[in-house]
Amino acid sequence: MTERKEFRDLAPPEEAHEAIASLDLEPDPETVPLSEARGRVLAERIDAELDVPGFDRASMDGYAVRGRDTFGAGEADPVELDLVGAVHAGTEPDVTVAEGEAAEISTGAVMPPGADAVVIVERTEERDGNVVVRTAVAPGDSVMLAGADVAAGARALGPGTRVTPREIGLLSALGIDEVPVRGRPVVGIVSTGDELVRPGDELRSRAGQIYDVNSYTTAAAVEEAGGEARLYPHAGDDYDEMERILVEAAEECDLVLSSGSTSASAVDVIYRVIEERGELLLHGVAVKPGKPMLVGRVGSSAYVGLPGYPVSALTIFQTFVAPAVRRAAGLPEPRTATVEGSMAVRERYGEGRLRLMPVGLVEDEAGETLVYPVDKGSGATTSLVEADGVVEVHPDTEYLAEGERVEVRLFSPDVRTPTLFGVGEDDPALSRILDRLERPRYLAVGSRDGLRRLRGGVPDVAVVAGPTDRDVESVELGGWTREWGLVVPPGNPDGVTGLSDLVDQDLRFVNRDTNSGLRASLDDAAAALAEDRGTTRSDLTDDVDGYELGTKASESPARAVVSGSADAGLGLRETAESLDLGFVSLGTEAVRVHANPDRVEKAGVRELERALGDAGDVFDSLAGYGLDRD
Amino acid sequence: MTERKEFRDLAPPEEAHEAIASLDLEPDPETVPLSEARGRVLAERIDAELDVPGFDRASMDGYAVRGRDTFGAGEADPVELDLVGAVHAGTEPDVTVAEGEAAEISTGAVMPPGADAVVIVERTEERDGNVVVRTAVAPGDSVMLAGADVAAGARALGPGTRVTPREIGLLSALGIDEVPVRGRPVVGIVSTGDELVRPGDELRSRAGQIYDVNSYTTAAAVEEAGGEARLYPHAGDDYDEMERILVEAAEECDLVLSSGSTSASAVDVIYRVIEERGELLLHGVAVKPGKPMLVGRVGSSAYVGLPGYPVSALTIFQTFVAPAVRRAAGLPEPRTATVEGSMAVRERYGEGRLRLMPVGLVEDEAGETLVYPVDKGSGATTSLVEADGVVEVHPDTEYLAEGERVEVRLFSPDVRTPTLFGVGEDDPALSRILDRLERPRYLAVGSRDGLRRLRGGVPDVAVVAGPTDRDVESVELGGWTREWGLVVPPGNPDGVTGLSDLVDQDLRFVNRDTNSGLRASLDDAAAALAEDRGTTRSDLTDDVDGYELGTKASESPARAVVSGSADAGLGLRETAESLDLGFVSLGTEAVRVHANPDRVEKAGVRELERALGDAGDVFDSLAGYGLDRD
Repeated sequence: MTERKEFRDLAPPEEAHEAIASLDLEPDPETVPLSEARGRVLAERIDAELDVPGFDRASMDGYAVRGRDTFGAGEADPVELDLVGAVHAGTEPDVTVAEGEAAEISTGAVMPPGADAVVIVERTEERDGNVVVRTAVAPGDSVMLAGADVAAGARALGPGTRVTPREIGLLSALGIDEVPVRGRPVVGIVSTGDELVRPGDELRSRAGQIYDVNSYTTAAAVEEAGGEARLYPHAGDDYDEMERILVEAAEECDLVLSSGSTSASAVDVIYRVIEERGELLLHGVAVKPGKPMLVGRVGSSAYVGLPGYPVSALTIFQTFVAPAVRRAAGLPEPRTATVEGSMAVRERYGEGRLRLMPVGLVEDEAGETLVYPVDKGSGATTSLVEADGVVEVHPDTEYLAEGERVEVRLFSPDVRTPTLFGVGEDDPALSRILDRLERPRYLAVGSRDGLRRLRGGVPDVAVVAGPTDRDVESVELGGWTREWGLVVPPGNPDGVTGLSDLVDQDLRFVNRDTNSGLRASLDDAAAALAEDRGTTRSDLTDDVDGYELGTKASESPARAVVSGSADAGLGLRETAESLDLGFVSLGTEAVRVHANPDRVEKAGVRELERALGDAGDVFDSLAGYGLDRD
Repeated sequence: MTERKEFRDLAPPEEAHEAIASLDLEPDPETVPLSEARGRVLAERIDAELDVPGFDRASMDGYAVRGRDTFGAGEADPVELDLVGAVHAGTEPDVTVAEGEAAEISTGAVMPPGADAVVIVERTEERDGNVVVRTAVAPGDSVMLAGADVAAGARALGPGTRVTPREIGLLSALGIDEVPVRGRPVVGIVSTGDELVRPGDELRSRAGQIYDVNSYTTAAAVEEAGGEARLYPHAGDDYDEMERILVEAAEECDLVLSSGSTSASAVDVIYRVIEERGELLLHGVAVKPGKPMLVGRVGSSAYVGLPGYPVSALTIFQTFVAPAVRRAAGLPEPRTATVEGSMAVRERYGEGRLRLMPVGLVEDEAGETLVYPVDKGSGATTSLVEADGVVEVHPDTEYLAEGERVEVRLFSPDVRTPTLFGVGEDDPALSRILDRLERPRYLAVGSRDGLRRLRGGVPDVAVVAGPTDRDVESVELGGWTREWGLVVPPGNPDGVTGLSDLVDQDLRFVNRDTNSGLRASLDDAAAALAEDRGTTRSDLTDDVDGYELGTKASESPARAVVSGSADAGLGLRETAESLDLGFVSLGTEAVRVHANPDRVEKAGVRELERALGDAGDVFDSLAGYGLDRD
């Protein structure tokens, strides 16, 4: 085997924070047009360079007068002034107001020389070229003096101010269209796994290629933290090229990130570049996940190596790197970055290092936030969207009790608690019904696992298909029926008529996993056939090639038939028809939506119940579907 | 006078919401690259088109084996298998594992044909080309089956999902680099005031021009709400051109906004365009501010006319228009859009229509949010940054009591409560000290008004210069001294030696307003001179041309001297030197920082106290400044 690096002396997490803080990520300030300044942070104080308004300005429609001329005027005792002209907004006055005179003026217009007050139009009347004034005004009435709003030389906005629409307003008033702002740290993202392919590029699965998840995810998290992300091309297994890219990224960026490579050779290249051209500050942190985290410098750039699993990479980025990016950009910690909640379940720990535990959120009937652990380190991408954030569990914690208060740092300030949390069967009708809900989370874990989870008390609902042992206390919200059977190639070339053909003929079959309601229906049918034949179910199904190979999703067996890798698959009439395949019906099974009895009044559950009641069009549009009239 | 539109039948605010909701702002969906999808909203459901992983994948480093071959193996009783090759991540296996054989495999690599489990490297040893296996593994151990993470055909993300980094991750895993998202409503902003000039363009103050505040402010608020803002060129007083621009904007946008024009002719053009080419839904709403709000259609575009004052325009936009823009973009109301607080003062009302009251926020020592009204409808731009948001005061409210709980809708989700709220004297040293604080708000209202406000109990500190009546209970945090006098042109061409020259010579003088500490010092000096001359102060200062004309900011009189419009101005030695002007010293005055006794322990106040203690370099760098050693 190639040499593997070991992490014997793990640094405490505080040291990792300090090491990253010691790296200078702060870019030079820059100047942006006013129209692009929103969300940026002022790099310096802005003092007013001009008076606002720049002239004495009428603040009402009316007549510009000398205040003294109106003294003593009233409704019963008006004064009459000579009307000598008019001033409109945006024009230079071509009139002067002398004693006993008035000029018509509109809001925003320049006060004409001589005038010191405005009489509002409602208290006047024009008569024979004169103005009758029915009120007294004092000098300054209805006039905004030059500089009264902002005076030239005054402090307008301080350095570090976040620019929101109101600051855009003040900058506009001062005529500033080029705004000095803090630079956004440039963060280079280098992809190091040999097997990674960028989304959009062609994937060669047989060669073990997978799409690169961490590059775009990290880039999005960098942008969210106020940095500018730069993706570097993928070098594959060309290690000289990879070294060249790393060095180039370090020259062009304030920070370079890569995420855990499965390739020891790639790790060696990173080490060599850091050792030859920079400094290794820290390798290995006492934190789960993220043990192999690496902090150092390459040339004048900072370098942080993230773990490889997507949830781990995002967790380590948000915990250790995002705060440094925000500091460098001058941005505060987002106010919505954390939520409080209670543990929905008891969670044991006790591994002696800080655990950054990915968690999901669900609301109870009262709108309180419940927190449950997700992702047991499987590295699954789906855990990414199942997890809403991270709870820090301290090394000396033995367990978190059910009901214990915890603080969740969200994966993004934009993450929201789902309005509904469902688990259970994968079903095309359900998928369309979920589309009509506000913000559902649904995990297609299968009927059996769905019921098990509902029993645990965390989800709001479980969707259960086929025969099940109903030992879960629940409230049924509704349901439907679906026709199931064997999906075969178009035209049914092998002349399959039922389950017995799978037993008796040499056909390659693809089954569903044992969590699936379809599988439960098939198992029942197999048991019945075995009884007919006087054998056991397992002896019968041993003769079916592929019976034990269970796939996870509703369409998977049918897709195997499409690809030619199977002669028959367990599936729905709807799936067979939508993929233009043949179908041999074996029966109809019920799909029921079971609600957690503690959540029946929750808004999201009621929304689902209403959607189920209105889903007639969905069942009509799918082959083999019907309302369950039980 | 030109005809003015009247608003006799004001619509209730709910009708305005309904009228805007009845306008269709929703644009067509669009497709964006994955790298630009963050923050967008999915337009449709995304089902997986491929299995993730696309192959059976080793999830640990070790040896790919047939599980059966290891049955019964253990530390004491290992089995030995033939090593037949190796598989690395990102390559297609060129080896098959038969009975009694093993292949080296790295994490992420494709399982070679024949193998069904991985023995982790730690439980093995290589010996003479064979692998010694010290543990038993079952089929599937340390293997992630194809589709185990995401199965082809499974529901991945629902329509309406906000794309955050984690969703970017799932989309990446599915190889999706073009993402179908909700369109952003295009909002055209038409500037209608004759006197408005875009920031960056030359301003002709004498012609009554002012910078256009509402266009960029509204544009920023549109972008913040998820829309795409488009600014249309300013037509000035060319009304045919303005009509052409309005029609063009309506053709190109989902919504057109303009803000209250002071020009009746411009309003007439808007009316004509709406009447000829669309429909007027609503004119005038029973809300303060925003009475003249206008809602309608022009062609297929919606139209909303906003009030003209910047705070009013932003208030009406955020209250009535932003929710409609967010709905059209598919975005939820931002979670940080509102904060709760207690009224810091009693506020009377009772006008019989809904008041959208602009308020500022300040925190007390305990971190509780206090809310106080700002902007009495002055239309001042500075109110924009003084106000943090709006409290809705219902028409039947007579007053809000001090301590009453209110909900504040912030002007932006990014608005934060200042860390310090100070009021008082405008001073160059203070301005530099404020630059060192986290997020201060400072209103340069002058020493007298500052003390008055501190007495009202709302601000944290007041900065007071010159002679004052110290009738406010406060805690002094520190202070400094500054040299003041008369700022004159370079070389002092009029040979000014002191105040008496202003009285005796025919000099144009510019004073500060009576709130200023400098003015208080000058008034005292004038009183002393009057006593010397056996006259009264007011008789004396009547002889000074401009004594009563008080300007608001520290530099204003000096700038009048620079511009040639004054022969002398009241000011600081520092101001004179920084503007390369002459200076005639009249004395030194103290500047003291007074803290609200209830806020002494507030973090922001302590930060200021520390900054004052560390400000020696500031005083050293400014002419005429010194530490106050009292």
